[in-house]
Amino acid sequence: MKLGELAAALGVPCLGNADAPILGVGEFETAAATQIALAVGARRERLASSRAAAFIVAADTVTEADSARYNLLPTAYPKVAFARAIQLLHVAPRQPTGIAPEACLAPDVVIGDAPTIGPRAVIGGGARLGARVTIHSGVVIGRDVTIGDDTIIFPNVTIYDGARIGARCILHAGVVIGADGFGYARAADGAHVKIPQVGTVVIEDDVEIGANSTIDRATLGETRIGRGVKIDNLVHIAHNCVIGEETLLAALAGLSGGVKVGRRVTIAGQVGANPQVEIGDGAIIAGKAGVTKSVAGGETYAGTPIATLREWKRERIHAARLPYRLPDIETRLATVEATLKALLPLLTPPTAESED
Amino acid sequence: MKLGELAAALGVPCLGNADAPILGVGEFETAAATQIALAVGARRERLASSRAAAFIVAADTVTEADSARYNLLPTAYPKVAFARAIQLLHVAPRQPTGIAPEACLAPDVVIGDAPTIGPRAVIGGGARLGARVTIHSGVVIGRDVTIGDDTIIFPNVTIYDGARIGARCILHAGVVIGADGFGYARAADGAHVKIPQVGTVVIEDDVEIGANSTIDRATLGETRIGRGVKIDNLVHIAHNCVIGEETLLAALAGLSGGVKVGRRVTIAGQVGANPQVEIGDGAIIAGKAGVTKSVAGGETYAGTPIATLREWKRERIHAARLPYRLPDIETRLATVEATLKALLPLLTPPTAESED
Amino acid sequence: MKLGELAAALGVPCLGNADAPILGVGEFETAAATQIALAVGARRERLASSRAAAFIVAADTVTEADSARYNLLPTAYPKVAFARAIQLLHVAPRQPTGIAPEACLAPDVVIGDAPTIGPRAVIGGGARLGARVTIHSGVVIGRDVTIGDDTIIFPNVTIYDGARIGARCILHAGVVIGADGFGYARAADGAHVKIPQVGTVVIEDDVEIGANSTIDRATLGETRIGRGVKIDNLVHIAHNCVIGEETLLAALAGLSGGVKVGRRVTIAGQVGANPQVEIGDGAIIAGKAGVTKSVAGGETYAGTPIATLREWKRERIHAARLPYRLPDIETRLATVEATLKALLPLLTPPTAESED
Repeated sequence: MKLGELAAALGVPCLGNADAPILGVGEFETAAATQIALAVGARRERLASSRAAAFIVAADTVTEADSARYNLLPTAYPKVAFARAIQLLHVAPRQPTGIAPEACLAPDVVIGDAPTIGPRAVIGGGARLGARVTIHSGVVIGRDVTIGDDTIIFPNVTIYDGARIGARCILHAGVVIGADGFGYARAADGAHVKIPQVGTVVIEDDVEIGANSTIDRATLGETRIGRGVKIDNLVHIAHNCVIGEETLLAALAGLSGGVKVGRRVTIAGQVGANPQVEIGDGAIIAGKAGVTKSVAGGETYAGTPIATLREWKRERIHAARLPYRLPDIETRLATVEATLKALLPLLTPPTAESED
Repeated sequence: MKLGELAAALGVPCLGNADAPILGVGEFETAAATQIALAVGARRERLASSRAAAFIVAADTVTEADSARYNLLPTAYPKVAFARAIQLLHVAPRQPTGIAPEACLAPDVVIGDAPTIGPRAVIGGGARLGARVTIHSGVVIGRDVTIGDDTIIFPNVTIYDGARIGARCILHAGVVIGADGFGYARAADGAHVKIPQVGTVVIEDDVEIGANSTIDRATLGETRIGRGVKIDNLVHIAHNCVIGEETLLAALAGLSGGVKVGRRVTIAGQVGANPQVEIGDGAIIAGKAGVTKSVAGGETYAGTPIATLREWKRERIHAARLPYRLPDIETRLATVEATLKALLPLLTPPTAESED
Repeated sequence: MKLGELAAALGVPCLGNADAPILGVGEFETAAATQIALAVGARRERLASSRAAAFIVAADTVTEADSARYNLLPTAYPKVAFARAIQLLHVAPRQPTGIAPEACLAPDVVIGDAPTIGPRAVIGGGARLGARVTIHSGVVIGRDVTIGDDTIIFPNVTIYDGARIGARCILHAGVVIGADGFGYARAADGAHVKIPQVGTVVIEDDVEIGANSTIDRATLGETRIGRGVKIDNLVHIAHNCVIGEETLLAALAGLSGGVKVGRRVTIAGQVGANPQVEIGDGAIIAGKAGVTKSVAGGETYAGTPIATLREWKRERIHAARLPYRLPDIETRLATVEATLKALLPLLTPPTAESED
């Protein structure tokens, strides 16, 4: 593809040699002379250090000198252009391969057009799959599951009975959807009585779930993952959680039962959240934070117990100085005390003296 | 089922209309008029806001006004009654389906009465399964594994050679039992020499293990999960751990090698424990705590390094105030120092003056 | 095997009865009279409490009294001798069983000598497997994957297309290699545009990966796990990470995208690392730490934000004393202030008095 064609396909301007051949997208540091690279942040300042044929750059950083010297595709959304360039240049169109003879489907499974269902996939009775679904090997889909159009399910995923998966979802290998929530009642003798988990899980459209993540079914009602939510690997979402649209959850985060997360929230890695807490729209929860209580949207939080990032930083600064400040304060205080003590005998009031 | 029949089945009194038809258990907020709901805690105070036909309530909260107005099932253990009502009204009795022709069993596998073994399950030589076991699709069971009566193993679980699983256990999808412990010896050249892990894992009766949790085999001897232990999703239990009866471990908790946990301990989400530490009976470890040393039973702990909850809270309160208190102290101290400094010239002793 | 034969096989001296029969390796506390046990640390001081026939001990701890009384195998590397003794006495030599008829291999898969490939394994087109590989049941291997000699892959592992696995690796059950990295670009309308992950994963030789751990493919280029790296269970390694040789990662640790870890680093359980940070050779990261910035090698670190262990401990000591020291300081300061206030009227200069 020529650079000008790529620019046209991405809907961005082409500054420089529109005829330069572009065979792929490369990493900035290691790109070949036939590749285009993303140059944002610090990399933007050192285009000369990359051999790439062209660069995707932020439109507001383009200088006349650079545009004279380099082939540039400027755009207000350089990462989006980067993503689309990879899609165009590296991702082959889907080729449906049909249903492998070694797949094991219940007789009443309904499957849309152009499926790919791999060997050893198992699909239970009453399941309904949309058009162009891809079900890889070793996937086990329970009874009465529904899966939307264009959804891709990687190997060894398990979907329990009754779960509903939307369209254009991607479930990576080892994901478990719809296992029982962790719910017990303590009986008179102290033993744990299992609360049967008879609710379900709903995954809306355009959700991606990372490898070995687990999303439990609801006790009653449903656990719901909103449209466009993106979940990283090894994330735990407990029974009856509700996650708002386009929220992100990074690896090893865990939400307890009944947590409500708003829209476009960012939950960083290894964050935990207590049962039933609510996280407002657009909130950002920093890595490893413990969401010990509900927090409002539009703010960044950190620490355990949870605090605003500002509060947390202020406390951290003071805590880090403690080893220096506290001994200093104690030394100064002791000096003051000693001075006062030494002074006290000198301060017998003069009037008392005159009484002698 | 009529409300009176349900009450009788649960062994609790029925206050109100014993003839009210109850078709299911609903969530308090969304229950239909033919459902019963659990009303404890804050919900107890707002029965009028639910459309449920009847409520399971704590016996000591029943007022005459409420019992005149609502259909109530009062009990000292409302969550237990709730669990049993769901079981009665929503869970169909198990229907064994036999051994799927697509299952792959070694010739000498011994299986009790009324099994359900799904397609693509693989069971190794020497395995012995009790009566009424359910082995879902994609499960791989190694050689010489034993599994007790009425145990349910969900899809894509792996059980390594020689592990022993008790009766009435539930292993959710993706669980791995008996993988090698993480043990290496550093050789003269600094390389890691693997310590072969030749011990085993014993899961006692009535244990439930959440999706994608992993319990490693012992180096020598055994890793043991006590009767009635309940483990949430994505929990890691290392080689040679011993977990006492009826202990709970929440999601993403991790125990290092050789940790000994007592009976009826509660380990919250994302807790970690150092190698070889011991946790006493009935201890509660708060979420995200790091059990850096052994702790006695009957107490609640938090933080890293581990401390009693009381100590942790006291420290947290002081730490949170630091940004305000430390500057205040420093300002006051500087004022005192300045005052003293200004005073000192004034304090030439009067006796010295009289000597002039 | 006789003790003398075992000593010879391990290449260590035999002190005591070289004819003592040794049938196995036992745990120090529970060893039978025909077993050898490891006796290091505190156990070294109480050999009399074990019934073991002989002990592997650190050479520099052997006393004449002990060597007269016990059968000892002294060595500078007792854990290595222990590992090798278990290997010799407990691990049967590998017996290749060929390719199970229920395995599902693409026609063009290339497999070396003496394979073991279990039922229900699925191997995609273009895969090349070395000699003596063991692929357990339920493993799904994508297209164009390469696997080196003597590598063992436990059940229900998933390896995505194009990944390269070295020789003598061990992948435990449920591991996922090569799932997509967690990468999105935010579009003008706020939606997440997936950045296609078209790079790969390279696992070098002698790597062991614990159950249900996940290693993502690179966006472009490769994620690389160095020779001899050992990874525990439920570990997350994101796209484009590079892990140096012989580094250890304990359970539930998570590395964000593009993290560079040096050689012989130790990363303890539940550690997290921010995107792009670098960890120097030989660094030790204590459990639960958050690597919030790059850290140099050869040092031990702890806490979030990351600090040297020394700094962290000093801060912890002061923080733990806060509840006692801060009130004490405030009380003393108030006393000083009150004393000064009471004194001030007394300090009208004597010269002023004489002016009256």
